[in-house]
Amino acid sequence: MLIDDLQHKINSKTKPLGALGTLEELALKIGAIQQSLSPILKEPTIVVFAGDHGIATKGVSAYPQSVTYQMVLNFLNEGAAINVFCKQHSIALKIVDAGVNFDFPENSALISAKVGYGTKNLLEEKAMTATELQACFNHGRKVVVDLAAKGSNVIGFGEMGIGNTSASSLIMSRICELPIEKCVGRGTGVNDEQLQQKITLLKEAQTKHAEVKDPKAVLQTFGGFEIAQMCGAMLAAYEHQMLILVDGFIATNAFLVAKEINPKLQDNAVFCHLSDEHGHQNLLNYLGASPLVQLKMRLGEGTGCAVAYPLLKSAVAFLNEMASFESAGVANKA
Amino acid sequence: MLIDDLQHKINSKTKPLGALGTLEELALKIGAIQQSLSPILKEPTIVVFAGDHGIATKGVSAYPQSVTYQMVLNFLNEGAAINVFCKQHSIALKIVDAGVNFDFPENSALISAKVGYGTKNLLEEKAMTATELQACFNHGRKVVVDLAAKGSNVIGFGEMGIGNTSASSLIMSRICELPIEKCVGRGTGVNDEQLQQKITLLKEAQTKHAEVKDPKAVLQTFGGFEIAQMCGAMLAAYEHQMLILVDGFIATNAFLVAKEINPKLQDNAVFCHLSDEHGHQNLLNYLGASPLVQLKMRLGEGTGCAVAYPLLKSAVAFLNEMASFESAGVANKA
Repeated sequence: MLIDDLQHKINSKTKPLGALGTLEELALKIGAIQQSLSPILKEPTIVVFAGDHGIATKGVSAYPQSVTYQMVLNFLNEGAAINVFCKQHSIALKIVDAGVNFDFPENSALISAKVGYGTKNLLEEKAMTATELQACFNHGRKVVVDLAAKGSNVIGFGEMGIGNTSASSLIMSRICELPIEKCVGRGTGVNDEQLQQKITLLKEAQTKHAEVKDPKAVLQTFGGFEIAQMCGAMLAAYEHQMLILVDGFIATNAFLVAKEINPKLQDNAVFCHLSDEHGHQNLLNYLGASPLVQLKMRLGEGTGCAVAYPLLKSAVAFLNEMASFESAGVANKA
Repeated sequence: MLIDDLQHKINSKTKPLGALGTLEELALKIGAIQQSLSPILKEPTIVVFAGDHGIATKGVSAYPQSVTYQMVLNFLNEGAAINVFCKQHSIALKIVDAGVNFDFPENSALISAKVGYGTKNLLEEKAMTATELQACFNHGRKVVVDLAAKGSNVIGFGEMGIGNTSASSLIMSRICELPIEKCVGRGTGVNDEQLQQKITLLKEAQTKHAEVKDPKAVLQTFGGFEIAQMCGAMLAAYEHQMLILVDGFIATNAFLVAKEINPKLQDNAVFCHLSDEHGHQNLLNYLGASPLVQLKMRLGEGTGCAVAYPLLKSAVAFLNEMASFESAGVANKA
């Protein structure tokens, strides 16, 4: 009923039927989520979940583990790409310390939700305990509940964590039942030799944890604190009827687990961009999802959400502000 | 030299090498055009050239010819999609009456550059005279020169004109030496039967004007006043070292002719989106151009330029505002 009314409103605008393409699909989706013919994007926020990974010191990344905390400091000092793009689009930015191997000074942009100083090395044991996983879900949920209470209805989910493409590839491979080669990429930029080493290590991890199948157990075994908190946060965002903006490869893996828990999640999700990280396209195909933009970006931090955000605003703006054929006195299709 | 310095500045930013993908290419391009390590986008303006076509009354469009002037009035009343998107992104909007079959009241957003009340029917004769073509080039140039004098260094080129996908298909087919079937589409939304009729009519036009080869003569024979003025305007924008934002199928055809006249034009051009109009992909392939976004839009009016514009701002913003590895104290690649 509302959907029909929304579609009618879209079709009455002064443009050929369907001529705004994806923006029309977005307008319909946002209107449906908000159950409104005149939806509004309120207090848009990007939340960057950061965490360290035990596997990061084993040669899977082009950068040392210390870059995780250094980049968090860079976020807090407003020097990173995500700071620049959030500022450009008036998006609030929150950084969550989900489990970085560093003690940060207090900062108004920082949410302390530390579950530990990095996960265990998944080559030897599960990345986290069941208790830690539950703590991650609780922390992620609280972040979203607090934002909802402040009036936000759209959240972009980003991350930072050296080693987390490895964790994500393992999650994807197990849940999607795809060979690791279809799920792995160069992350921050490993070379050919390092990529082979990464694949070899990830296959060892798969053999070590061959019995794990349940999505939550997969997350506990291979995931990072930041991935698990994102997962919990996305589930809470759905429950609060918020728009969920999914960033790149790692955020989409958090979404993958969350969707296993609540299949309806995708109704509220927008996949903001196609990452250049090999594996993201396969993952989006698995989910039946189309990314908004394809800009060969592979940075994480929620940067894909931030650069795609104006398109969501455009969708809402045309729906609310464009004239109809009738109001403008324009002849409709012959 | 400057290019090397620009690339070095981009590479020193706190992100893996190349991780901002297309935005890095844009930053390099804009810096090169402005010959600056700290380029700025000044007084961004979208210019919508409007004109009527003699062929429009012959059954090539889903809409009556009167929609051209009605949509121009809609632009002037700020009710169209391009108004909404320009407002969203603080882009100035100018409408050029290049040759609409209507006399408009004065309006601060309207530039009167009327060459006639629509072109001749190209099924019977050349769309315009050589004198009219030259007048179009002069008018288009003046629009750009005036904007440059006011400090603008980035112009988006859009159009409105019932019948102008037909004109554009004929231009493309002749210059690219591609069969009309690869150059024609549904325009504002003709059905299968109407599409066949459109193709039949365009083939008649091709036979009628089989001898025309020179790019300017092709433009004179098949073009519209709005297409020819855009062509002249783009040439002037290059001469003023401006960034040229190319919209969809029709604007890209204006660019095609302009590039035949000045092959260097592409150095200053950004192809903002892939239109859903069949033929645009083939045209971009011919030009060796990659569109910034692919949103299944097919509206014209410069709407592709407007929705892609924030990406250009993002490119300039990260180049000017992001911290370097050194300034942020982040460890670079191991």
